[in-house]
Amino acid sequence: MESAMPSSTVPGQYEQTERTTPTRARERASYDRARVHAILDAGYVCHLGFVRDGAPAVLPTLYGRIGERLYVHGSTGSRPLRAAGGAGEEGMPVCVTVTHVDGLVLARSAFHHSLNYRSVVVHGRARQVTDPAELTAALDALVDQVVPGRAADSRPASPKELAATAVLRLDLEEVSAKVREGGPNDDPEDLSLPHWSGVVPVARSYGAPVPADDLAPGIPVPAYLTGFTGG
Amino acid sequence: MESAMPSSTVPGQYEQTERTTPTRARERASYDRARVHAILDAGYVCHLGFVRDGAPAVLPTLYGRIGERLYVHGSTGSRPLRAAGGAGEEGMPVCVTVTHVDGLVLARSAFHHSLNYRSVVVHGRARQVTDPAELTAALDALVDQVVPGRAADSRPASPKELAATAVLRLDLEEVSAKVREGGPNDDPEDLSLPHWSGVVPVARSYGAPVPADDLAPGIPVPAYLTGFTGG
Repeated sequence: MESAMPSSTVPGQYEQTERTTPTRARERASYDRARVHAILDAGYVCHLGFVRDGAPAVLPTLYGRIGERLYVHGSTGSRPLRAAGGAGEEGMPVCVTVTHVDGLVLARSAFHHSLNYRSVVVHGRARQVTDPAELTAALDALVDQVVPGRAADSRPASPKELAATAVLRLDLEEVSAKVREGGPNDDPEDLSLPHWSGVVPVARSYGAPVPADDLAPGIPVPAYLTGFTGG
Repeated sequence: MESAMPSSTVPGQYEQTERTTPTRARERASYDRARVHAILDAGYVCHLGFVRDGAPAVLPTLYGRIGERLYVHGSTGSRPLRAAGGAGEEGMPVCVTVTHVDGLVLARSAFHHSLNYRSVVVHGRARQVTDPAELTAALDALVDQVVPGRAADSRPASPKELAATAVLRLDLEEVSAKVREGGPNDDPEDLSLPHWSGVVPVARSYGAPVPADDLAPGIPVPAYLTGFTGG
């Protein structure tokens, strides 16, 4: 699959646009491709926004990245997919946001409480993937985004299943990352207050794999799940 | 603060509407108030969707719940807040989505891979909170949503800080929850395939609190952070 090659004046950077420029905390914004890719690759659940009858809708769903393309999972018959299918070649305006929470930032003042986080926001037009080869690659990417190596260790989709699956493609062109890290930013006059202040680290953690009730005997937990710490 | 009392034909249930009725997997949908509240109360980061120049935008932000009202954090000057402020009494159409990932569902077939999750989607019109008493209560709710008990152990917002903070209020009226749980749903003919199948549990985990570099000596980690396991 070809990866999209958006025009960009800075190599390695996404082109900054008006809507990817924050109105505040601009120092937290980044357009660095490597940084954006790393944030996307650290997750597998996105929040897909689209407009329906003039009102916004936001749904959680799975995504996978291949180069400069994002594939977002849906099912045929679901609203965003029907809308995107109906939008044809022009595509449906969407916003895809991926967020990782890294810490609770407890300042002395209620006002300066915050979160440490990494997020990516992608604006663009989503098109339904119809080419069977691209659809197969996209489904593999969706599965491997969750558990790298899993796609090769599962039964590939049948033509009937491919027909029942819908995937949206969104080129990574209008993209920004936002990152907050470090400790609280209390006002100097608050530093002597008696309130504990600092950061509570947050992470996504994975438990020991639980076999399916009907798993045939003698099938061990695969190597890619041993010590699994996330996609 | 009064809680909104939406009309509802089933006590303890949110009224189902066309856009809160899923087009598929309807058995996963719930309109139960207690269930919705529990899902909301288990988190503190939402994805706020709004429409800007006809296109969707989705931003992660903090929220807090008081009864049948959701308060969503912003800052004066940010785009959604400016838009909501400009929308006046009529409010700005928004969609607020909260998602918890509980497990990776690994089926034998790529097609049946899934996630266990709990999510809530709220549709409605957001209004900027302007009443100082309500704004103070909302800020406390936002802080306590992250760490219960923290609001009382921090310096309250000054009038200047209150003026610099913007909070959106969204009544819980058009609301649905969606929950997937349990093991993989493989097709009967796939059960004998040699692929491991089951669920990898996922949770949000919290590390030991890290004191701020400038924390005054002798301030212990507060009791509400000892053994903290999330809001």
